[in-house]
Amino acid sequence: MENKEISQAVIGRLPRYFRYLGELKDEGIERISSQELSDIMQVTASQIRQDFNNFGGFGQQGYGYKVEYLYEEIGKILGLDKTHNLIIIGAGNLGQALANYMNFERRGFIFKGIFDNNPALFGRKIKDMEVKPMGEMEAFVRENEIDIAVLTIPKTSAVEVAEKLVQNGIKGIWNFAHVDLNVPKEIQVENVHLSDSLMKLTYNIIRFENENNN
Amino acid sequence: MENKEISQAVIGRLPRYFRYLGELKDEGIERISSQELSDIMQVTASQIRQDFNNFGGFGQQGYGYKVEYLYEEIGKILGLDKTHNLIIIGAGNLGQALANYMNFERRGFIFKGIFDNNPALFGRKIKDMEVKPMGEMEAFVRENEIDIAVLTIPKTSAVEVAEKLVQNGIKGIWNFAHVDLNVPKEIQVENVHLSDSLMKLTYNIIRFENENNN
Repeated sequence: MENKEISQAVIGRLPRYFRYLGELKDEGIERISSQELSDIMQVTASQIRQDFNNFGGFGQQGYGYKVEYLYEEIGKILGLDKTHNLIIIGAGNLGQALANYMNFERRGFIFKGIFDNNPALFGRKIKDMEVKPMGEMEAFVRENEIDIAVLTIPKTSAVEVAEKLVQNGIKGIWNFAHVDLNVPKEIQVENVHLSDSLMKLTYNIIRFENENNN
Repeated sequence: MENKEISQAVIGRLPRYFRYLGELKDEGIERISSQELSDIMQVTASQIRQDFNNFGGFGQQGYGYKVEYLYEEIGKILGLDKTHNLIIIGAGNLGQALANYMNFERRGFIFKGIFDNNPALFGRKIKDMEVKPMGEMEAFVRENEIDIAVLTIPKTSAVEVAEKLVQNGIKGIWNFAHVDLNVPKEIQVENVHLSDSLMKLTYNIIRFENENNN
């Protein structure tokens, strides 16, 4: 654990473990073997054991994992036992969708505000939060100790807004703008480039068709 | 090219190349070396050459790549020279955001319809398209030769809807429902599990803080 460098591939799989374990927990299942987990997640049991060994194992050979314990431990690794103040920049459809989409609070995310530069949206309520003008963003980030900003604005303004967020102490940016942000390495960025993902889908469709026509 | 198996990691990088090349093209840049591309994309030049070698190279040593040619070739590999009929299932905020978000048409995606099971939404226009009842979805998919369905519905109904889509000839599913779909392997699925991505962000924030407090 501690300072050992864990690969981003392993980290990328943790939320999925967390999701499945949460479902098992909700179903009242108390214990699960790596083989059973392997079957429902369609990941090999050895992959699961290897991933968990990065964090000291969690389990007991031939005895299985305690679902609730494992769920909570992975949650802690993912930082979900802590609270994170979060704002959304951009109150368009995507910003609204994200505000409403997730059980932010259940996972320790505290939705603190939503900003836009369109005056027509100022004061409109999104998830009980009035849309604020962009001009208030910088002071708000400082004064409310915002950890995470969700960027759902066009790429033309995203780079400049990201710089302002960094100057005012943001720790992480969840970036939906269609541009790679160039921020200092101490700022964590998670990109969701939606159209990249759609293109990957079309690639796989075409590839499958080509393979089956040949 | 042809039937050679290309890793999903390489494929995952292609849309990003495509995006950068599109920007270079729009800026009127005709030629670029792998080193220059490396600098702006923050990927090593050797990685770029290696990736492109999967598709026969594209370039000439010491001469650089022709931007427009490369852009078009990568677009073809991604299947963007073909058209793809697409529907959106779920006309909530996320479905609306996706309908409006992307330049579907520019990339060969033809937005054919949007469906929901909430009667309050039937007939409402989203990007010039009236929301249709879910009951019409199956016949619509068959009759309009829909290739891609975008799932923005809750996970409780996503699995059942995916099965119906598969039965009616869908080729690919762009899945935003918070569940892993279990479809035949000839159906391509690209998952966008938004909260997984947010958890990865919090993991990296916590890890950075721990490293710098120790």
